[in-house]
Amino acid sequence: MTYYYEFVYPEGEFPVKAKIHSVDEIELHWHKQVEFILVLEGTVNIRLGQKKYLLQTGDFIFVNSNEVHNTFKTEEQNLLLAVQINPAFYAFIYPNFTDFYFDCNSFGQNDAVLHRHANIRKYLARISWEISRRQTGFRSRIGSYLFLLAGELIAFPFYNKADLDNAISDEDLNRLQRITNYIEQHLHRKLTLQEIGEEEHLSYYYLSHFIKDKMGISFQEYLKKTRMQRAVELLLSSEKA
Amino acid sequence: MTYYYEFVYPEGEFPVKAKIHSVDEIELHWHKQVEFILVLEGTVNIRLGQKKYLLQTGDFIFVNSNEVHNTFKTEEQNLLLAVQINPAFYAFIYPNFTDFYFDCNSFGQNDAVLHRHANIRKYLARISWEISRRQTGFRSRIGSYLFLLAGELIAFPFYNKADLDNAISDEDLNRLQRITNYIEQHLHRKLTLQEIGEEEHLSYYYLSHFIKDKMGISFQEYLKKTRMQRAVELLLSSEKA
Repeated sequence: MTYYYEFVYPEGEFPVKAKIHSVDEIELHWHKQVEFILVLEGTVNIRLGQKKYLLQTGDFIFVNSNEVHNTFKTEEQNLLLAVQINPAFYAFIYPNFTDFYFDCNSFGQNDAVLHRHANIRKYLARISWEISRRQTGFRSRIGSYLFLLAGELIAFPFYNKADLDNAISDEDLNRLQRITNYIEQHLHRKLTLQEIGEEEHLSYYYLSHFIKDKMGISFQEYLKKTRMQRAVELLLSSEKA
Repeated sequence: MTYYYEFVYPEGEFPVKAKIHSVDEIELHWHKQVEFILVLEGTVNIRLGQKKYLLQTGDFIFVNSNEVHNTFKTEEQNLLLAVQINPAFYAFIYPNFTDFYFDCNSFGQNDAVLHRHANIRKYLARISWEISRRQTGFRSRIGSYLFLLAGELIAFPFYNKADLDNAISDEDLNRLQRITNYIEQHLHRKLTLQEIGEEEHLSYYYLSHFIKDKMGISFQEYLKKTRMQRAVELLLSSEKA
């Protein structure tokens, strides 16, 4: 069962949110906010676009703006810190921040990057601490840490999104949203890729590759997974009733 | 003679500029940017609104957004550091930043504030250093220092501008701009407050108080000062020709 360990959200338009939680599985999703996910305890699987990673305790991964991702548990329990940042916060200092795709995670283990990893963990921890404590001056300290964090982030490899084959456009995101909504609404009956292709005026072949490319899993896998999850939800809610 | 010791401006829409310079006199002016003025050497007079201050070496003063101010020399030479910040930079963290008037300077000397003064000097120095050096990571460090600086600023007394009698509105600023332009254009002939009052459809009495309130000096003083400066400029340029 997914349970939320702690929620620490500042009010209003604050540019950063921090959440400490345990996950069974978080569905494939995407958001404008960039996100750092740091494993505090246990291990967890994370899928980013088409790549799947196993994160150990202490590992972190950076999720770019609108990058499709999901999180699912391993055999072990997990405790994750998720820090979401509004990329517009960085616009004055890094005008092109959202034009770039950052390949930032803790998997490299050479000495040159280990201190960067340590810094990122430290800033994530301090930002979360300041958000939850809200003691005098926390806003200025959070603003300061957010920039120190960005300074470490941009030292990782990054690419112009325009140069990336599998970059996801707003149009792609809207299409993905329509497709996942359609699947949600028609889960209870036979559902084929042809049918969705007709809805979207796309060929079977194109749509099949589109889903695999953008979501990282095939249509059939996604359908099976979503039905499974719906079934579990129904069983749990019928127990309660 | 006014001379510029060093100009260090980052390009583009960078939210902060730093300038190290010596002044004879800088005319009454105002700008959207907030500004810290720090005296590096010597002493200097600064007029902020209706108040006049004598700043010693090490002193600093904060100029609020659109606050009318000018700087003029004492008997001594001076060397000033001016750091101008776009207040929009702070909007994500302090949504109401520009609604407040900050009364921030180094004149108080009790122990409780001395470390704050030291911090402000330190952050101003580091920001200027980073701007001029532009070494790897300078953007993130500047962003970080800008927030630490704001954290010290907001620990000084501040007031809601709406509650201040002498707060200056956009309308006031436009009127001031029209008045100073008019004076500039008609410096060479007899110029009376009545004439400007007619231009602005304001009574002599109201206009007289308006100028004194918003600019900190009387119409006659301003006129005399501006003519003096124009005369000096003419003499200097005729020497060159």
